[in-house]
Amino acid sequence: MAGGGAAASALSSPWRALLQRALDANAHLKHSTFFQLATVGGGGRPANRTVVFRGFQEHCDKIQINTDARSNKIGEIKEWPLGEICWYFTDSWEQLRISGIIDVIDGSSPDPAKLQQREKAWFASSVKSRLQYLGPSPGIPVANDDHVTDVHLDPSAGPVDTYCLLTLDPENVRLIT
Amino acid sequence: MAGGGAAASALSSPWRALLQRALDANAHLKHSTFFQLATVGGGGRPANRTVVFRGFQEHCDKIQINTDARSNKIGEIKEWPLGEICWYFTDSWEQLRISGIIDVIDGSSPDPAKLQQREKAWFASSVKSRLQYLGPSPGIPVANDDHVTDVHLDPSAGPVDTYCLLTLDPENVRLIT
Repeated sequence: MAGGGAAASALSSPWRALLQRALDANAHLKHSTFFQLATVGGGGRPANRTVVFRGFQEHCDKIQINTDARSNKIGEIKEWPLGEICWYFTDSWEQLRISGIIDVIDGSSPDPAKLQQREKAWFASSVKSRLQYLGPSPGIPVANDDHVTDVHLDPSAGPVDTYCLLTLDPENVRLIT
Repeated sequence: MAGGGAAASALSSPWRALLQRALDANAHLKHSTFFQLATVGGGGRPANRTVVFRGFQEHCDKIQINTDARSNKIGEIKEWPLGEICWYFTDSWEQLRISGIIDVIDGSSPDPAKLQQREKAWFASSVKSRLQYLGPSPGIPVANDDHVTDVHLDPSAGPVDTYCLLTLDPENVRLIT
């Protein structure tokens, strides 16, 4: 994961070194960059789904997650922006719980810096990964995107409307081993 | 997982056959019986942690989870008993999301049937697994319990006070592939 490489930076929070160690120890597993993001939906109902770590936002500890603007979670998170990540490393048996505030950055954001950040995250994704936002409906993380073959995307084209960047700003991080 | 074997029973809900298929396809992975349970804590904060599938309650679809009565989630769930399981199968790339109501069954339950159920779940756990409830603090699921060596437990002794059974009664189940 491109952004993960910067995790051990001397300027970053101490838990990022622990995370980087866990990512390194589990790097041979494709799913080591997958975690479960819990949020709270309508009626106070907990919601939980698997998403993919897309590295950190530059110069801070915000965790980036790509998502589809058509998924239910977007509206729910806009209403109630609290989240907790549970990141379980299946080979080293470590668990990181990271709670914080989630920011939803879609194409309608009025903040030019956020739009730039969204564009950057878009281009940091593989073209195959981008193709899923052109599909008929949001999916879940898969091992590879080989099934996405019947659509075409200009690699130099900017983010499509259905592409949404989430950033979770960690407030509380617990490593449990 | 002992209870998992009954999942494909002709009398059970259709999703249990899908779950059993996923469990079979991922049976070579110790962590295939691990999932993330999201609940809502104080102030509407989502909480998310890894727990272990302990089979189904007899004659129904309730999912059993062993937990430590000293963990924070017990008080939170008693206050707000909604949960969503995110069960991601890392080899078959399938995800089950199961939401429902959670029942907390500790030694103080006034219901004899629930106490019996708790006792049954206690004895269905390995002696090593039971030993963790005698330890100083709640832990997380691990590959094996070999580290629990400095305490002794009579295998015929019933549940200790710190042992708590959770059951989640599925209301909504989605399989996403």
